Amino acid sequence: MDKNKLGGHYLEKYNEELESLRNRVLAMGGLVESQVIDAVNALVAADVRLADQVIKNDARVNSLEVIIDEQCAEILARHQPAASDLRFIISIVKTITDLERIGDQAEKVARMAVHLAEKDRPKNQYADVQSLGERVARLVHEALDAFARMDVEVALAVAREDANVDREYESVMRQHITYMMEDPRTITRALDVIWALRALERIGDHARNMCEYVIYLVKGKDVRHVSLEEMERAARGETPGEE
Amino acid sequence: MDKNKLGGHYLEKYNEELESLRNRVLAMGGLVESQVIDAVNALVAADVRLADQVIKNDARVNSLEVIIDEQCAEILARHQPAASDLRFIISIVKTITDLERIGDQAEKVARMAVHLAEKDRPKNQYADVQSLGERVARLVHEALDAFARMDVEVALAVAREDANVDREYESVMRQHITYMMEDPRTITRALDVIWALRALERIGDHARNMCEYVIYLVKGKDVRHVSLEEMERAARGETPGEE
Repeated sequence: MDKNKLGGHYLEKYNEELESLRNRVLAMGGLVESQVIDAVNALVAADVRLADQVIKNDARVNSLEVIIDEQCAEILARHQPAASDLRFIISIVKTITDLERIGDQAEKVARMAVHLAEKDRPKNQYADVQSLGERVARLVHEALDAFARMDVEVALAVAREDANVDREYESVMRQHITYMMEDPRTITRALDVIWALRALERIGDHARNMCEYVIYLVKGKDVRHVSLEEMERAARGETPGEE
Repeated sequence: MDKNKLGGHYLEKYNEELESLRNRVLAMGGLVESQVIDAVNALVAADVRLADQVIKNDARVNSLEVIIDEQCAEILARHQPAASDLRFIISIVKTITDLERIGDQAEKVARMAVHLAEKDRPKNQYADVQSLGERVARLVHEALDAFARMDVEVALAVAREDANVDREYESVMRQHITYMMEDPRTITRALDVIWALRALERIGDHARNMCEYVIYLVKGKDVRHVSLEEMERAARGETPGEE
């Protein structure tokens, strides 16, 4: 469903409302993406002020979710969208739930940043958190891009990259468990790092969810809860599977 | 919004569809609740067969989410629900997302049960997991009850109890961290237990989310992202705040 297609089918006013809805989602996504980046930077640089700002900003993310939900309800009530527009609205209701939860995870990383700022720094200077953090921030960016352009190929790329992120997460986690066993005095610090890594991994999952909605929108196929291979087959299919 | 009120306002067929939707959500909820109970029992009793069953059953939870989503889209497309019915549908779309994620967390507990079944058991025989598990299973049950009866008081009770669950979780977690530091050989086991506890705590949060939608439905007030006190004030208000 691209803008031109929408334009051909519906009244001017209705189109404007859908466009405004789309822009709000993108704005919320932009805020959430910068929350992730700031939270990771705060942790790596032991920047408590930046971490506090991320924690404070989460209220803005939350209120955007509420506002967009209301806007969806209004559009559903005022117009009677069917077929692809209806899918568009339902996808947005789901997408912003994931965006809000990415915001929650960013806040969690920021809270860990505050804890860790008081503790000794590990030898690697949190290079592992930075690496994973940059990867998932990019995933969020690309998931939003897939949504903005309704691009199935970008959506698939995010799903594939999320699988790589999961593997990096598993390997980094195993390392931290080894450190903990070698030096039990580092356990409380290691647990804070583990919670932050876990939050980053969850952010990747939410980005993948968002991409599943894009494929649902464009292809009419629900690709939640299926393997990456099945998802690729569904996304590459020429026609919507149901409707 | 109770059944009688719906009955007075709308066509027979439409009512039947809403009722069937409501029943499907309750059925999905019943399955999810039993998944939580089975996962906790599997972990406590080191019952790998039961854990495997929970892991297998998660596919059923997932497909129920997809089916109910479709049903919501159909009702929105066929009828043009407004006001409270529209809120009802939107709440269901959100509710089943939480139910599906409770299912995911139950699956996670079951996976930890499989890991832990091979390891030495702690002296407390996982009494802490059992206690927290029973509490959150009850929360899920009560959240469904609040949804089934559109009962704001039950919804509030769940939100209050979730705060207690969070406190129990924090205290049990601190204990496990102490054990780990005292005996680093138990670290890998302790981490599996910590993941399971964490999953249970998340289940409580999802149950609270479901109750927020109930209050939104009955009172027309969005009580996500507010304090328990504000939530109680909103829920006790006599008239819907917006509409």
